[in-house]
Amino acid sequence: MKKKKILFINPVGHETWDADVKNYLTAYKEDATEVDVVSLKKGPHHLEYHYYEALIAGELLHTIKEAEKKGYDGAVIGCFYDPFLREAREICTRMVVTAPAESSLQLAALYGDTFSIMVGRKKWIPAMHRNVRLYGYGEKLASFRSLDMGVLDFHQNESYTENLLITEGRKAITEDRAEVLILGCTVQFGFYRELQKVLGVPVIDAVLAPFKHAEYLVALREGLGWITSKVGGFETPPLREIKEWKLEDQYRVPDLWE
Amino acid sequence: MKKKKILFINPVGHETWDADVKNYLTAYKEDATEVDVVSLKKGPHHLEYHYYEALIAGELLHTIKEAEKKGYDGAVIGCFYDPFLREAREICTRMVVTAPAESSLQLAALYGDTFSIMVGRKKWIPAMHRNVRLYGYGEKLASFRSLDMGVLDFHQNESYTENLLITEGRKAITEDRAEVLILGCTVQFGFYRELQKVLGVPVIDAVLAPFKHAEYLVALREGLGWITSKVGGFETPPLREIKEWKLEDQYRVPDLWE
Amino acid sequence: MKKKKILFINPVGHETWDADVKNYLTAYKEDATEVDVVSLKKGPHHLEYHYYEALIAGELLHTIKEAEKKGYDGAVIGCFYDPFLREAREICTRMVVTAPAESSLQLAALYGDTFSIMVGRKKWIPAMHRNVRLYGYGEKLASFRSLDMGVLDFHQNESYTENLLITEGRKAITEDRAEVLILGCTVQFGFYRELQKVLGVPVIDAVLAPFKHAEYLVALREGLGWITSKVGGFETPPLREIKEWKLEDQYRVPDLWE
Amino acid sequence: MKKKKILFINPVGHETWDADVKNYLTAYKEDATEVDVVSLKKGPHHLEYHYYEALIAGELLHTIKEAEKKGYDGAVIGCFYDPFLREAREICTRMVVTAPAESSLQLAALYGDTFSIMVGRKKWIPAMHRNVRLYGYGEKLASFRSLDMGVLDFHQNESYTENLLITEGRKAITEDRAEVLILGCTVQFGFYRELQKVLGVPVIDAVLAPFKHAEYLVALREGLGWITSKVGGFETPPLREIKEWKLEDQYRVPDLWE
Amino acid sequence: MKKKKILFINPVGHETWDADVKNYLTAYKEDATEVDVVSLKKGPHHLEYHYYEALIAGELLHTIKEAEKKGYDGAVIGCFYDPFLREAREICTRMVVTAPAESSLQLAALYGDTFSIMVGRKKWIPAMHRNVRLYGYGEKLASFRSLDMGVLDFHQNESYTENLLITEGRKAITEDRAEVLILGCTVQFGFYRELQKVLGVPVIDAVLAPFKHAEYLVALREGLGWITSKVGGFETPPLREIKEWKLEDQYRVPDLWE
Amino acid sequence: MKKKKILFINPVGHETWDADVKNYLTAYKEDATEVDVVSLKKGPHHLEYHYYEALIAGELLHTIKEAEKKGYDGAVIGCFYDPFLREAREICTRMVVTAPAESSLQLAALYGDTFSIMVGRKKWIPAMHRNVRLYGYGEKLASFRSLDMGVLDFHQNESYTENLLITEGRKAITEDRAEVLILGCTVQFGFYRELQKVLGVPVIDAVLAPFKHAEYLVALREGLGWITSKVGGFETPPLREIKEWKLEDQYRVPDLWE
Repeated sequence: MKKKKILFINPVGHETWDADVKNYLTAYKEDATEVDVVSLKKGPHHLEYHYYEALIAGELLHTIKEAEKKGYDGAVIGCFYDPFLREAREICTRMVVTAPAESSLQLAALYGDTFSIMVGRKKWIPAMHRNVRLYGYGEKLASFRSLDMGVLDFHQNESYTENLLITEGRKAITEDRAEVLILGCTVQFGFYRELQKVLGVPVIDAVLAPFKHAEYLVALREGLGWITSKVGGFETPPLREIKEWKLEDQYRVPDLWE
Repeated sequence: MKKKKILFINPVGHETWDADVKNYLTAYKEDATEVDVVSLKKGPHHLEYHYYEALIAGELLHTIKEAEKKGYDGAVIGCFYDPFLREAREICTRMVVTAPAESSLQLAALYGDTFSIMVGRKKWIPAMHRNVRLYGYGEKLASFRSLDMGVLDFHQNESYTENLLITEGRKAITEDRAEVLILGCTVQFGFYRELQKVLGVPVIDAVLAPFKHAEYLVALREGLGWITSKVGGFETPPLREIKEWKLEDQYRVPDLWE
Repeated sequence: MKKKKILFINPVGHETWDADVKNYLTAYKEDATEVDVVSLKKGPHHLEYHYYEALIAGELLHTIKEAEKKGYDGAVIGCFYDPFLREAREICTRMVVTAPAESSLQLAALYGDTFSIMVGRKKWIPAMHRNVRLYGYGEKLASFRSLDMGVLDFHQNESYTENLLITEGRKAITEDRAEVLILGCTVQFGFYRELQKVLGVPVIDAVLAPFKHAEYLVALREGLGWITSKVGGFETPPLREIKEWKLEDQYRVPDLWE
Repeated sequence: MKKKKILFINPVGHETWDADVKNYLTAYKEDATEVDVVSLKKGPHHLEYHYYEALIAGELLHTIKEAEKKGYDGAVIGCFYDPFLREAREICTRMVVTAPAESSLQLAALYGDTFSIMVGRKKWIPAMHRNVRLYGYGEKLASFRSLDMGVLDFHQNESYTENLLITEGRKAITEDRAEVLILGCTVQFGFYRELQKVLGVPVIDAVLAPFKHAEYLVALREGLGWITSKVGGFETPPLREIKEWKLEDQYRVPDLWE
Repeated sequence: MKKKKILFINPVGHETWDADVKNYLTAYKEDATEVDVVSLKKGPHHLEYHYYEALIAGELLHTIKEAEKKGYDGAVIGCFYDPFLREAREICTRMVVTAPAESSLQLAALYGDTFSIMVGRKKWIPAMHRNVRLYGYGEKLASFRSLDMGVLDFHQNESYTENLLITEGRKAITEDRAEVLILGCTVQFGFYRELQKVLGVPVIDAVLAPFKHAEYLVALREGLGWITSKVGGFETPPLREIKEWKLEDQYRVPDLWE
Repeated sequence: MKKKKILFINPVGHETWDADVKNYLTAYKEDATEVDVVSLKKGPHHLEYHYYEALIAGELLHTIKEAEKKGYDGAVIGCFYDPFLREAREICTRMVVTAPAESSLQLAALYGDTFSIMVGRKKWIPAMHRNVRLYGYGEKLASFRSLDMGVLDFHQNESYTENLLITEGRKAITEDRAEVLILGCTVQFGFYRELQKVLGVPVIDAVLAPFKHAEYLVALREGLGWITSKVGGFETPPLREIKEWKLEDQYRVPDLWE
């Protein structure tokens, strides 16, 4: 079986979760998959605010483009806001790019009629709700349920987090009629199995969903040639302009664009 | 790698396409996949009419349930109307079931902003349009384009069909602003590669899309335990009732329901 | 006044409700209407599961087609999932066919801005919600309210059922702002009058709504020639194919298709 | 059979069409129906402009309320904009009120997957499109087709009008994939039969649809007690206020409100 | 700066609020604005019922047309149902017309992701909900919250009203996740500042929003020539017809239409 | 009248349009407005590709935040994709921020029932269509019309551009039934007046619309205290985090965050 090289990007300016996520993915990957996990050289510690997302735009996209150049087959943008997924697919011509919300929602829509998304804070809901609608799943959304915890808190006290996820997840099922749960943050990794066992519904993990999706889409690209259409909204910027305007110098990403 | 057994069902009462589809799938399957292709013992020769679809309900579902019992990991319902997909997922508790429209639309929504569906006859459009909306992709649909050919005609004169697909596909791209094409009938198998090459956009094949999707979903079930939620709309009928009412005798499907 | 012959079909494999429904309809029919009530020769005792619906496909449709051949003017499919309504209209060229959800929703949309649907189990809700949306009434739906009772329970203890309907109906009005109630199961027949009196809002009965609708549509067909369009999605399968493929033999319904 | 008294209102300030419409309705009415046709004492000659509609508000509603007082069972507002239908249902407590767009759209949604509406001028389209959406049928609308004729022109040269309706209707069917046509103006009465014959699809007449609908709804009110909900948006204004404010004097409609 | 003459219309048959509203607007107007406040010569005391709205159609529109003739630059229809806004824009060719719901919703959509509307009675909700959808903001609506008070009660005991607005507003924010509040009645004027201070979210006042909007739109018309399109749905009725039919005599509004 | 300081940002890495835009705005500004126009220190020459948009994220947002600190009352993001409008409103607590698409669409929705957007290339359409839907105006969109010109071409040969805008604008009106036109690129500035005169419909200029909107919203903030809600999706990132993580150093924007 052909090797699949996949890069999982924690789009934050610290390496706290990189090793854990790498171990996590390694446990779930296909045999032929090689997985690397990186974070950004600088940047905010989480992306709860949209400003923080905006700050990482350049480095995230250049990390992705560089991965394509280095021969990766797939890249995963590890944040449930799916930041710059559209832009990443625009600049890549060969490499698959996935992100948690899109990948999780496509699965949830298969596994049940309705789903709820477990978020950390109410602040996150409007932007995520927009994505749910843009991806086409507005009518299948049962609810958002907030834990009132920040991204950095989820692994401080894991049994507290787990209990809260179970409590709110159960309410989502009984009160909101959710048939499937989605963990609305990549840093909620590690909890889905227990939740699934206790609650008896599929619980989609936001790290594994886009990772397995990437493996799948890499196989489709390899075997069938299916990849982002370059006719229309995802047309790649012309190298000529990038060179002419010296964009690669201005944004210190030499050699990426060849 | 764990073996995946997948059954592709041509839900019609003749075996015309079984061998070809088997060869086709074999060329695209994962190494560890075993694929079988069957058609129904009786039934219409195509499903262009909704009455024809209705006729096959029992045999299709029992073929699926029997496959689950026999140890298949996945089944594909080989008709772009996705007939009885919901029911199949309701009765299965372990086996993955996929169907062409759902699988193709999820991919098309990833590969572009908009897509067009190439159908045989205008007659098919309203029911397929309903599915596009139900799956959540109504806003991404650029158009349906009809070839004015029946299901049984597509392989009569393949170069004629191919030319027509190219002509109508090109119109979909230039006039309707489609970024991706979907072949809206499983019997259009075999044409996607050439179309993709000529037209320069992803062309989703309605046989391969649900088949590769099934492989993917089987892996998710095996590795992560994700499968149709049984809380809510997909709750499985109770064996007790089926036995008590002797449904398995009435519909001559003994031994399936254990 | 011209006679109208209408067949009400209880699409289940037992006759339990046939006589009661016949008496019920007789009390509400137009003078010129002749009403018959039949159930199926075999089949499940209720249709709460979609698999059960699927099982009856052939016999239901052949009962309908046979009724058309025998000279019935209208047929009613007596289940709130509206099973195979689309298919029934496809195969009929002269006879009117109605079903509870469509007929009830059209009335509820006239009588108020919003409505709630009283169901037996939560299991039913997703499939019924899909129909509400497909018929165009998604924005008028105030809520589903579940009694947590099965179809076979409604008439076990009628005063219990009635009280529960009143309790949940009142919540629908005060908490969900429903202006109209719909009884979301044909086997809830017999309760609407009392509910209407107690709750002070229109309560649509799922047996009477499609029956009176059928009388109305028969009158329109007779007087104005209005009937299902045969151009497009409801085009009838060609007799030639049915004969050629011996479908009528395979499904043991000889002589229907002439 | 109980008598049904129905008043058809041509909501314009001239009697030009009253006799013709009365004859027309008489040919299509149930035996037990008594039909009267009236127009307004003053007012514009047509309602193509929304200002003209607004002008007739008071007289139209008082004509309707007076009809209820006089014992009519139903009233039809004879304009495809459905002017003041909501208000009419608010003030009536016993009498049924119908209007062309609502009644026609409910039928079109039954008879096909899609429909087109034949209008006189493009000017009419936005307001009618709004109604199509409000009634829930936005997704079933294939197109509006305009004849570029005013309301007052339709019967000037009937064969010209008929030919134009046939030409545009045929385009709606072949180019826009309409399965049903709706005549989007009451003054297009008289053409539907021939169109139906020539074009082979149901053609809904905007005079007959609300009239037959009224007969149907009167039967439901009589037999089942179904009528506009008075809990919520259609709650009737309190007589106390009307009296206290002397509204009935201000608007010269003494004695209506008892 | 060019003078802007704006007329605020309290579309009811009494002058109770005119002086207060004039003072209110005067405190918020631009320096160059001249504001007048009028009510109607006759009419209901409030517009909670749609029949009451309908009654004022003629006088409201003629007041507006007369204002245009007298040289006003803008008119505000002072009722949150936005009665006859469409008609007013149809008959005006130069003067700007605004109304509370449209103006408030456009602001709320800018200031937050979601909003709640504080209404007096549940009765109002369905018609206002229709407007929210028609203006395009259905997906941003968090909730309607009802005070169970009539229009005439809001200023009877202002501290009671204020407390209730605070209580219900807080629930809208915490339970319904509203980010912005809209006061859904012009007669709730005067409360927004305190609510804003106490609740910490923008609170849109239904008198000020359309008034300031009118000032803005007048500036756009003056400076850029932007005003209602007269091609399509807002085409003005032809003077020729109005004269020929003597509409201006019938509705006693001589000399308006020149 | 209180002074309003407004900054118009051409979010590209060259000053080509700054002086022209400044003159343009100066001709249309209120007396009390002071307007500045800036572009970015580095960056692409246009933003037709989403990658180019992403590159400017940091500098655009810091330019905006710096403007707020310097005492500007409003900032305009001068690109019809409305890049980072949401983020800008999140980080600002006092200053108004507007952008072309949102401001233009709100006006177009007032001036007509439907509008068309004139774009440079088909590439732009999907992302702009997404915004049209997110802002709530999907149902009012008549069409996108593409000139097949790049941003840098519009002012190369102005009479060519003008003629093309007139030709395509006329088609939008007659074929797509647009009642209003929107110029879907800020660099189409300067053409609207002539188009308006020739075509007879409002033509919204994408530079002027957000600029005048900013003036309006500044007045509302000053006079009424209305500004972006900070409860929910637009909650501002906490200064504490920004300081603690030294984000302002990492992204070289010292002193902004106090």
